[in-house]
Amino acid sequence: MKITSIGVGNMGGAVARWLAKGGFDVTVFDLDPEAMQRCADEAGTEQASSLTTALKGADIVLTSLPTTKLVLDTVDQMVVDLASGAIIIDISTIDPDTAIKAQAACDVNGVRFVSCSLGKTPIQAETGEIPLFVGGDKTAIDEAQDVLERMGEKIYRFDDVVGATTFKLVSNLIGMTNVTVLMEGLALARNAGIDDDLFREALEDTGAVSFQSDVRLPWALKGDWSTRFSLDLAAKDVGLALDAASTFNVEAPVAQTALDRLHEASAQGFGREDVVAVARLHNSFEAIDG
Amino acid sequence: MKITSIGVGNMGGAVARWLAKGGFDVTVFDLDPEAMQRCADEAGTEQASSLTTALKGADIVLTSLPTTKLVLDTVDQMVVDLASGAIIIDISTIDPDTAIKAQAACDVNGVRFVSCSLGKTPIQAETGEIPLFVGGDKTAIDEAQDVLERMGEKIYRFDDVVGATTFKLVSNLIGMTNVTVLMEGLALARNAGIDDDLFREALEDTGAVSFQSDVRLPWALKGDWSTRFSLDLAAKDVGLALDAASTFNVEAPVAQTALDRLHEASAQGFGREDVVAVARLHNSFEAIDG
Repeated sequence: MKITSIGVGNMGGAVARWLAKGGFDVTVFDLDPEAMQRCADEAGTEQASSLTTALKGADIVLTSLPTTKLVLDTVDQMVVDLASGAIIIDISTIDPDTAIKAQAACDVNGVRFVSCSLGKTPIQAETGEIPLFVGGDKTAIDEAQDVLERMGEKIYRFDDVVGATTFKLVSNLIGMTNVTVLMEGLALARNAGIDDDLFREALEDTGAVSFQSDVRLPWALKGDWSTRFSLDLAAKDVGLALDAASTFNVEAPVAQTALDRLHEASAQGFGREDVVAVARLHNSFEAIDG
Repeated sequence: MKITSIGVGNMGGAVARWLAKGGFDVTVFDLDPEAMQRCADEAGTEQASSLTTALKGADIVLTSLPTTKLVLDTVDQMVVDLASGAIIIDISTIDPDTAIKAQAACDVNGVRFVSCSLGKTPIQAETGEIPLFVGGDKTAIDEAQDVLERMGEKIYRFDDVVGATTFKLVSNLIGMTNVTVLMEGLALARNAGIDDDLFREALEDTGAVSFQSDVRLPWALKGDWSTRFSLDLAAKDVGLALDAASTFNVEAPVAQTALDRLHEASAQGFGREDVVAVARLHNSFEAIDG
C-alpha cells in the first residue's frame, strides 16, 4: 500500500514518520521544505515536488492541514488526481460541516473519505501512542485498518464523519474551558495569599481535579508557557466546536466565555504560547515570564 | 474535651456522629429535632434544648450552617455564652469576609476561631474519609488536633481563615464550572448523534477528563439527578467564590457564566436536584426524568 502524507508539520509529520518507521511506503508533501526534509532524514520518506506528483499511485492519502478551508481546497484538488477507490484519511481537526463537504467532493469522484481526528499531542503521535476518532466510509476504514493500527494505540469508531469530527471538537471544548476556569481559580487562590504548593496538593483532594490540573497546573505555577498546544490552536478548535454547537442547536455559553478569554489572551500576544498562558490575563501572573 | 455541634444536618450530622463514635463527648443542637434524634440514635450524642444550654462547658464548638448570615449571627450569640479560651471550629462553607468578621467577633470575647472547610460529601464525612482545609488561631488548631484527626483523613493547614475559606470556594468554583461545560459538551455530542457509551469511553482518552467526568457524567447519561450535592448549594458556593474574586480583584467570567447557568437551571425547578441536572437546560435531556 502506497501512502501519501500531505501536510507534515507537528502532527502530520509525527504520523508520517511513525508509519514510515513501521515499514509503510510513505511519500510526503508540504509547502515547507524543512518539514519534508525532517521526515526524510528521520524516517526515510520520499519527498514529492508537487501535490500532483505526491498523489501518483497513492492508495491512501493522509491530510493534516491547519484550517478547514485548506482541507476543503486540498480535497477539491486531490480528487481530480486520485484513482477511483483511493482513500483520503483526514487527520486534521475540522468541523462536521467541512467533513460533510469534503466527503461529498470525494463521493462524486469515486474517492473514499475518512475522518480520523487524533487525540493527545505530537509527542505521543511520534510513537503511535494516540487515540484515533474515526468515522466515514466503512469499507475504506476496514481496508485501512493496518495503517490505522500503526498510527494509534486505540481506535474509536464513530458512525460517521459528523460523529468523529464533533467528538474531537467536544473534547477540546471541554478541556480548554477546564484550563481557563482552572486559571481563574488559581488567580483567586494566589490573590488570597494561598501558597502555590499547598494549592496544588490540596486541590488533588477535591472535585476540581482534572487532566488539565494534573498536566497544565504545574506549568502555570512555574510560569512555563512553552507551547505544547498553542493558545491560538485551542481557540480555533473551541471556535469550530461552537460553530458545530450552533449547527446542532446546542447552547454553550460557558465554552463561549472561555473562547472569549482565549481571544483576549491572543490579542495580548500570548497566542503562540501554550493555552495555559490564558493565566496571563490575571494580574497575579503579570510578573512571570517563563 | 467537651464538644458541642451546632447544626447537624447532612454534613454537620455526619461529622458529629463520627466524633461521638470515636469516643468524644458530643452534644448536638439543631432547630430540626429529627436531625438531633438521628445523632442520638446512631451515635449516642446528647441533645440540647437551646443554644445556650448546648454551649455549657463546651471546649470546642463545631458550627455547620447553611448560610454565611447564620454563621455570623450564631457566632455573635455564642461568644457571649462561651468561656474565654473556648474554640469555635466553623465547618460551613463560607466566604473569607464572613470568616474575618466571625474571627473578629470571637477575638473581642476571648474565644478562638478556626475555619475548617470540608472536602468531599456527607457519605465520606460519616466515616472520617474527608480532607480538611484548616486556617485560623494556630494554638487552637494545635489543641484541637485530636478532634481534627478524627474528623478527616488529611489536614491541609492554611496560613489563615482567608486561605482556608477561599481554597474551598475555589475548588467548588472550578469543579462546578467543569460540570457545567461537560454538560454543554455532552449535549453537543448527543445532538451530533454520538452514542453515549462511545462518548464516555472515548472521552477518557482525551484532555477533557476530570473528577466530574469520572463521577457525574455517568449520572447524566442515565438521567440520574438524585442529589449528592445540590444545584442550589453549588450555586451558593460559586456565588461566594465570585464575591471573593471581586474582593481580591480577580476576573472570573467563565465561572460567572457557569453560575448564570446554575441560576437558570434553578429557575427551571432543578435546584434541589444534583448539580449535574444543569444538563437539563439542554434539549437533548428534556425527555429524561430520573
